[in-house]
Amino acid sequence: MMLHIIKIGGNIINDEGKLLSFLEKFAAIEGKKILIHGGGKLATEMAEQLKIRQHWNEGRRVTDAKTLKIVTMVYAGYINKNIVARLQAKYCNAIGICGADGNLIQAHKREHATIDYGYVGDVDHVNVEFLLKLLEQDMTVVFAPITHDKAGQLLNTNADTIAQEIAVALASHFEVGLIYSFEKSGVLLDLENPDSVIPRISPVYYSELRKQEKIAHGMIPKLDNAFAALNSGVKKVMIGNAADLDRLIAGTAGTTLTHE
Amino acid sequence: MMLHIIKIGGNIINDEGKLLSFLEKFAAIEGKKILIHGGGKLATEMAEQLKIRQHWNEGRRVTDAKTLKIVTMVYAGYINKNIVARLQAKYCNAIGICGADGNLIQAHKREHATIDYGYVGDVDHVNVEFLLKLLEQDMTVVFAPITHDKAGQLLNTNADTIAQEIAVALASHFEVGLIYSFEKSGVLLDLENPDSVIPRISPVYYSELRKQEKIAHGMIPKLDNAFAALNSGVKKVMIGNAADLDRLIAGTAGTTLTHE
Repeated sequence: MMLHIIKIGGNIINDEGKLLSFLEKFAAIEGKKILIHGGGKLATEMAEQLKIRQHWNEGRRVTDAKTLKIVTMVYAGYINKNIVARLQAKYCNAIGICGADGNLIQAHKREHATIDYGYVGDVDHVNVEFLLKLLEQDMTVVFAPITHDKAGQLLNTNADTIAQEIAVALASHFEVGLIYSFEKSGVLLDLENPDSVIPRISPVYYSELRKQEKIAHGMIPKLDNAFAALNSGVKKVMIGNAADLDRLIAGTAGTTLTHE
Repeated sequence: MMLHIIKIGGNIINDEGKLLSFLEKFAAIEGKKILIHGGGKLATEMAEQLKIRQHWNEGRRVTDAKTLKIVTMVYAGYINKNIVARLQAKYCNAIGICGADGNLIQAHKREHATIDYGYVGDVDHVNVEFLLKLLEQDMTVVFAPITHDKAGQLLNTNADTIAQEIAVALASHFEVGLIYSFEKSGVLLDLENPDSVIPRISPVYYSELRKQEKIAHGMIPKLDNAFAALNSGVKKVMIGNAADLDRLIAGTAGTTLTHE
């Protein structure tokens, strides 16, 4: 049976109704599964309430020490534990963790010649052994996008990247399906037309679409990462609306990326 | 070898230097160990910064929905993950969790005829099996004092109680030493004299001390709970200064409660 690794986007988390309906479908997925969540605007709201000014450097948000504290509280505390409690209520035995727990994801502080990103981590290593133990015990792992540097420093890390790294790290142990679920219906052929979802994209078709500049700018890094994951042994990547999670997995909604 | 279950008090957590020196000693303890932390005044400070007024009912703090959000963020997020990251740096493979994770501690919302405590949980059940699995894998468990009701609701739960419940639940599997570490040196014979620590207290001696009203009022519930834990199979209970953790465990500092 396939191991499903599912990332949910921040906008789903911000919407109580959408989140609950997503978790309902998530809990019903048969077999082993891992959920990776972002934090969305809850962290930004908390920063505003605490009057912690968000700094930007060449268009990128900087995770300074105070912002790191907020994302650690909001992602690894509030959001993570609420998702776990709700899954428990649906008889889905979940455990909420971040990359520091069990030394699951070791990362290093991003270094860049001109931009100071602050406490942002780039992943070095996924500790597969402990993840395998948790999955063996039929635990559903709920992952907050915080990692550590093994020297005592927590680091804010992109949730899409974490999903991809975990998927690749587990690809030699399971048939892995990686799912990016958010508020859009999938990869659109025509950005103006929400019904123009492309059901399947192969690497060849993807390079055609890129040449024709048919892929929305914001979608390109996601798709590049998705194809990199496929090249590293992940079986399928599915992209689509969190509200359609069951149909995404069945392949009857959203966009499925495949090897051929 | 003894399983050590160690509760650290909030005042240690508030003091960066004391916390780091405690964690150094904690990481050096040989054998299996579990750390339970409170949150101290960090949660109160956060409530003040967010202008969330703390409500009191007949002298007791009420955990309303907003306060529950804060304690979940601060205890299960900020404090828990920072402790884990620091232990990882000391080659202590730790995992930070709360009672909702793995359904480890199921509780119910406290009901009281006259006082509304809000989202405060009283423990029903500790899921020993999953804890045993984590300990078997040589994971050091770091526990935030949040539980859940298995119906989706997180609950704020007393950290001393959690330590005691976990100790009792594991007493049939390990020789358990339960340690309450805080800023005081132990149980004092003379409250005015910090050097008057009582090294050992048996149940018989305890009832004598109670009769003579020698036990400080605030210490009585701690000691009552400690003796209850001993009666339920816990081997030793040690009470003393977090700065003396190694000596507490060796029995050369603090107060040790024993069966006889």
